[in-house]
Amino acid sequence: MKVGIVQQAFMGEKAKTVVETINVIEEAVLQGAQLVVLQELHQSRYFCITEDPENFALAKDFDDDVAFWGEIAKKAGVVLVTSLFEKRAPGLYHNTAVVFEKDGTVAGRYRKMHIPDDPGFYEKFYFTPGDGGFEPIDTSVGRLGVLVCWDQWYPEAARLMTLNGAEILIYPTAIGWFDEDDEAEKARQLDAWITIQRAHAIANGLPVVSVNRVGKEFDPSGQIDGIRFWGNSFVCGPQGEFLARCGATDAETKVVEIDTARVESVRNIWPFLRDRRIDAYENLTKRYIFKP
Amino acid sequence: MKVGIVQQAFMGEKAKTVVETINVIEEAVLQGAQLVVLQELHQSRYFCITEDPENFALAKDFDDDVAFWGEIAKKAGVVLVTSLFEKRAPGLYHNTAVVFEKDGTVAGRYRKMHIPDDPGFYEKFYFTPGDGGFEPIDTSVGRLGVLVCWDQWYPEAARLMTLNGAEILIYPTAIGWFDEDDEAEKARQLDAWITIQRAHAIANGLPVVSVNRVGKEFDPSGQIDGIRFWGNSFVCGPQGEFLARCGATDAETKVVEIDTARVESVRNIWPFLRDRRIDAYENLTKRYIFKP
Repeated sequence: MKVGIVQQAFMGEKAKTVVETINVIEEAVLQGAQLVVLQELHQSRYFCITEDPENFALAKDFDDDVAFWGEIAKKAGVVLVTSLFEKRAPGLYHNTAVVFEKDGTVAGRYRKMHIPDDPGFYEKFYFTPGDGGFEPIDTSVGRLGVLVCWDQWYPEAARLMTLNGAEILIYPTAIGWFDEDDEAEKARQLDAWITIQRAHAIANGLPVVSVNRVGKEFDPSGQIDGIRFWGNSFVCGPQGEFLARCGATDAETKVVEIDTARVESVRNIWPFLRDRRIDAYENLTKRYIFKP
Repeated sequence: MKVGIVQQAFMGEKAKTVVETINVIEEAVLQGAQLVVLQELHQSRYFCITEDPENFALAKDFDDDVAFWGEIAKKAGVVLVTSLFEKRAPGLYHNTAVVFEKDGTVAGRYRKMHIPDDPGFYEKFYFTPGDGGFEPIDTSVGRLGVLVCWDQWYPEAARLMTLNGAEILIYPTAIGWFDEDDEAEKARQLDAWITIQRAHAIANGLPVVSVNRVGKEFDPSGQIDGIRFWGNSFVCGPQGEFLARCGATDAETKVVEIDTARVESVRNIWPFLRDRRIDAYENLTKRYIFKP
């Protein structure tokens, strides 16, 4: 199976960015991609950099956006993972990955379950946590375990997608550095981000596809300087082995061959699913247990 | 806090090996170690390489072994994590980490919960899975989340230790290569093993200490050639950053300073525990959910 990963920088306006996205989707398909994965909130700047009620307007065209990307998937003839700002009702918004079949129909939708909130990433203001659980999405190229960004720090999310039959884990994401952090801290952050996602591949014996944005985006409120999105989109196999990795600074599109048969051979030498102590995991649904 | 990690090769007999272990514990303490961690089943060869009922005799002196290592801990004045073959009753054996306080008393015990079984690692024949859950052990140097070897592939184990108040995760282990595997496969296996344990540090915001054996041990039954234990014992901090790492071939003792205050600062910038979706994790106690 060939997957295309599209790492982009926001180009200042939606229309221009979307045109570029369409171009690179078509390029990826020309190179044989059967599945294309876009980055988190790929239509817009990363607006969660500040809390501003005006930004809810970015979700007002959600239904049109869905129809639009369906047309793009159909035209390109490719299974497409998008990441959109969904207005579900007034005052009720989600960070939603919509997955399209190659005929343009909606294959399924995943509403981001884990929502971050820290300086420059004020997502709890914008996004209601998903209420649909960790359900993979069936497509003609396989059963896709689509998760989004902050989910990538949670082994529970990857595991539940696996138990629900995911054949691949997919993370559209938007994460970056603050320029004011020192180089050692930046290196630790990037390495941790890659390491934990490769570990989801290893723990679950599944390939992982992670697509991040690049480029610096400034905080219009001036509260912080901005975020330098660190790119480094990558694909790894079921032992966590790199199959492709992008750089930290430029827009890049890569088409990567994934040997889906390796899932079975790797799980047969490392049968982790066999030995889970499900009789002893009950407390995973607790917030915290220890009382000092 | 200074931790000593003791990576050893089995020296052909218990007495000789144990004398060497005592020597390096004392060396580590001289270098300031307040906690020393030994590798899995450090008193003996890795007997699980074949299934032989004669090997149960290795556990017959368990009570004496416990008394012995208590004396060593007391003499060295150090908190000591050992890994012993425990006879609990005839026909009922465990792979048990016994932790000693620096006064020689038993601080606690952890019976390995996840038991592997694959060619050359026939542990299901020898070890009954632990029935004590994932309970950290309180010591004068902190609340230790002691897990053993195969547990290291399970994010659930690390998470439950964390929820139960562990301040550090500790893995005595015995893992290695088959010489007949190609170099690329060996590299993937070692890298996966390191990656997933670093990911436990990251997911839980805790330091991780992993101590593995080295040296080639042959299969006395001749069914397989043997196992070349890959060493690479390491210590990492709560972002998964390496603090120390041993090589793949030699016995090594390292004393490593761990800045325990970093747990709190890292968890404050990456508050993963805050956002766990405990309302949506119930199915983690299922074996598998998807029905094709």
